[in-house]
Amino acid sequence: MILEVAILDIIPEKSSDFERSFKISSEIIAKARGWLGHELQQCLEVPNRYILLVKWENLEDHTNGFRKSPAYELWKQNLHHYYDPFPVVEHYTMILEKPGKS
Amino acid sequence: MILEVAILDIIPEKSSDFERSFKISSEIIAKARGWLGHELQQCLEVPNRYILLVKWENLEDHTNGFRKSPAYELWKQNLHHYYDPFPVVEHYTMILEKPGKS
Repeated sequence: MILEVAILDIIPEKSSDFERSFKISSEIIAKARGWLGHELQQCLEVPNRYILLVKWENLEDHTNGFRKSPAYELWKQNLHHYYDPFPVVEHYTMILEKPGKS
Repeated sequence: MILEVAILDIIPEKSSDFERSFKISSEIIAKARGWLGHELQQCLEVPNRYILLVKWENLEDHTNGFRKSPAYELWKQNLHHYYDPFPVVEHYTMILEKPGKS
């Protein structure tokens, strides 16, 4: 399992529009091969900042699969115009996980 | 539920030591009031970079509770000397969560 991490800085007046577009775009990425779930969270300190966390089965499911699919064109069209600056996307692999009591 | 996010850049030759110290320090933070779980993941693109994700019941459990506790002094002593630069820590709140099939 690989975690895609992107800190998304949104053009300030466009936060609500971005959230609306993201909700629609959620359905696009959820259909991708190797997609295992995602979440969008909003920063408390910088309200026009978000973090996108996407779980993928393998790195290639994101970099070769999703990013080279026709679905990604739609994802880009829906979301990329909200970003300023354009985000750096990184991938992470688990070193240590300590789950709490649920 | 609040997500604490910290991107940790570790002095390059010290990654293994950091991981070992983090494992011990995991037990410290897990005893804090309001702690709901955490994970440490390593970046694929920048191997001396990690992301720390900690779930807290409330923001104050981290900022006032843990950070002002004697346990935090031990946490600092164990971990802060590995960071270069010193990390920016931010807190996030859930906007949209789409879990995959598990």
